[in-house]
Amino acid sequence: MHSIGKVAILTVLGQPVPDDVFQVVTGQVGSMSVEKVVAAVETAAKREGLIAADHYRGEHALYHAVLEALHGVCRGQLELGSILRTAGLKFAVVAGPRDADRPEEGHWLAVALYGYIGAPRRGFEHEVIGLGINHL
Amino acid sequence: MHSIGKVAILTVLGQPVPDDVFQVVTGQVGSMSVEKVVAAVETAAKREGLIAADHYRGEHALYHAVLEALHGVCRGQLELGSILRTAGLKFAVVAGPRDADRPEEGHWLAVALYGYIGAPRRGFEHEVIGLGINHL
Amino acid sequence: MHSIGKVAILTVLGQPVPDDVFQVVTGQVGSMSVEKVVAAVETAAKREGLIAADHYRGEHALYHAVLEALHGVCRGQLELGSILRTAGLKFAVVAGPRDADRPEEGHWLAVALYGYIGAPRRGFEHEVIGLGINHL
Amino acid sequence: MHSIGKVAILTVLGQPVPDDVFQVVTGQVGSMSVEKVVAAVETAAKREGLIAADHYRGEHALYHAVLEALHGVCRGQLELGSILRTAGLKFAVVAGPRDADRPEEGHWLAVALYGYIGAPRRGFEHEVIGLGINHL
Amino acid sequence: MHSIGKVAILTVLGQPVPDDVFQVVTGQVGSMSVEKVVAAVETAAKREGLIAADHYRGEHALYHAVLEALHGVCRGQLELGSILRTAGLKFAVVAGPRDADRPEEGHWLAVALYGYIGAPRRGFEHEVIGLGINHL
Amino acid sequence: MHSIGKVAILTVLGQPVPDDVFQVVTGQVGSMSVEKVVAAVETAAKREGLIAADHYRGEHALYHAVLEALHGVCRGQLELGSILRTAGLKFAVVAGPRDADRPEEGHWLAVALYGYIGAPRRGFEHEVIGLGINHL
Repeated sequence: MHSIGKVAILTVLGQPVPDDVFQVVTGQVGSMSVEKVVAAVETAAKREGLIAADHYRGEHALYHAVLEALHGVCRGQLELGSILRTAGLKFAVVAGPRDADRPEEGHWLAVALYGYIGAPRRGFEHEVIGLGINHL
Repeated sequence: MHSIGKVAILTVLGQPVPDDVFQVVTGQVGSMSVEKVVAAVETAAKREGLIAADHYRGEHALYHAVLEALHGVCRGQLELGSILRTAGLKFAVVAGPRDADRPEEGHWLAVALYGYIGAPRRGFEHEVIGLGINHL
Repeated sequence: MHSIGKVAILTVLGQPVPDDVFQVVTGQVGSMSVEKVVAAVETAAKREGLIAADHYRGEHALYHAVLEALHGVCRGQLELGSILRTAGLKFAVVAGPRDADRPEEGHWLAVALYGYIGAPRRGFEHEVIGLGINHL
Repeated sequence: MHSIGKVAILTVLGQPVPDDVFQVVTGQVGSMSVEKVVAAVETAAKREGLIAADHYRGEHALYHAVLEALHGVCRGQLELGSILRTAGLKFAVVAGPRDADRPEEGHWLAVALYGYIGAPRRGFEHEVIGLGINHL
Repeated sequence: MHSIGKVAILTVLGQPVPDDVFQVVTGQVGSMSVEKVVAAVETAAKREGLIAADHYRGEHALYHAVLEALHGVCRGQLELGSILRTAGLKFAVVAGPRDADRPEEGHWLAVALYGYIGAPRRGFEHEVIGLGINHL
Repeated sequence: MHSIGKVAILTVLGQPVPDDVFQVVTGQVGSMSVEKVVAAVETAAKREGLIAADHYRGEHALYHAVLEALHGVCRGQLELGSILRTAGLKFAVVAGPRDADRPEEGHWLAVALYGYIGAPRRGFEHEVIGLGINHL
């Protein structure tokens, strides 16, 4: 029925996703610093147990998933304040099979980011989305 | 109620978006060639009249919106077959205000791409999404 | 006779461009921060009325034109001080038709940057140029 | 009086540059293939003796100068036809000191590219410029 | 004693690495096509059983490790023939722990590429190296 | 017998390279700032006389060699702390012919970087390598 990426995207958009196969964590972060976006996602995912806090393996998987999602948000340069723009983002991190119908393929991670990017001035902004998927 | 990016994303995911403010065109394209994705989106948008077929202005706006959406899909290099991967994508092109509640801000374009990217082998793939927004 | 890009380039090089079709703004900025270059160009263009100060549309157009010009200056990474280099740049922003002979194609923006990039040490530098063009 | 980059830019724009310090080669190339632009510049520079045809050193210097100039032309991805665009370019290759007044700093190369980039359709294009400078 | 990256690098350089912790596969590929380099590495790794041939998971891990190694080889654009250059590469793929002394951290993959890149002309080339590491 | 890249790589890995053709400088630097890596390499190379401290030419050659090596280390974005990662690196700078057997081809520079990159937390890291080569 559900695939991990679609669950992440619909969740970050605030659409209800009835499902008991995937683990889901959500949050939000507004910043001119890319590293703060990465940190916010990692902190939430560890706190909720989607990745183990004391092993590098899960963090490595999540880190690359976040960077891939940021490519969709930044569209060319993984930079925010350093090129005079700011982002207000919601995020969803999802752990589970790539597809709810194919649990035999092991654990994967999806990170979806959705929100607004623009000049550091209210209303001077437009929407962005990004999705990163990695094997766990 | 609705913003142009959300309309594009929900549409490309196959979610119903009741709305009469935005013009929407959808389609799909599977290819190892980035230029075929660009061409498929441009052809559909012109055929349905979202951009004028005989002026550069609209095509310039759409072209950059498609490239920005492809950044989310490709996450680093705007390449498919040349780095041994293929993509099967649905697309939605939306024209209208940035936000249905703020029509005074003029016409904008959103291009959403959603689908699967992976090795040229059935099932060896995962989801991707991309969104590009530009003023028209 | 004149095209918008050529007018921008010749102006930034200090060559006289007799013309009454285009609006032209010039200035200069020296910095190790990319965002300061963006800010200097945007401030000058707004102050002189090339783009409206109170609408996102013009700022969005100008922002992308500046980033495109910076690609020519930076040649690979939109970074200055963060990779230990500095830039001293003149800039010209031009608004008008893409070509003085084809005014029917609407309003466009050109941003030209020209100057020197190099190590933060006098004389350890060479010339750079960049041009970004966008529909307004 | 003259610096190597300015000589290259003015020459490629068709402006007369009275000068007997620099060696200058010009040409033009239209293509959807980036490698054809590189090849056209290299062939002209070797034919006119700006770099030695039988040593790698000069070719290495020129190759990187051309790629840097292409960053200004392509503004993000060194791709033309593969992302559905084409370029018609003039080029100028200049060899000499970085600055006519400082001949003691040895030999340098400048490559300037100027022309139009756009959709593969007449008139659907805008201007671009690029400049690459390297020590010889 | 040994870490997975060092084993991959020394192996690809032809240095003997006495070790019975890591699985190692080597090969070579010369091409102007990036996808042929990816394919050569993947084929060798599957043939020797470093990754399972019938699951996406291992291929996904290896694919990203190869792309990361290619960043070291290409230094900016994952392109070869399309920007008029060719590469002759040896490769080593290594599977095992990140460090021989810390086997508890699970299975990782390292891909090392070493060889020459340059113009398509004998001797007009210099050395390159790249290393990509991913969790398996 | 020896090529400049191999000498740089083996040296940075701590392997003995008996040789009297090449000039070699080594050092190490740990940082979240890319510019500090560049500065550490440049300072060491000047102090040991591999490049002249008072001419731009050698610094230009070295600067680009360091940036190329950093592409292997960073694999996509020349950023460290700004995307929440840190690097602990050894470096070797080598000056001499491209190949010990072909001294007639003039002076070249090789910069090799080797070490660990990862989260700012002990052990949450993996190996990286980078090599940049430029004519001097």
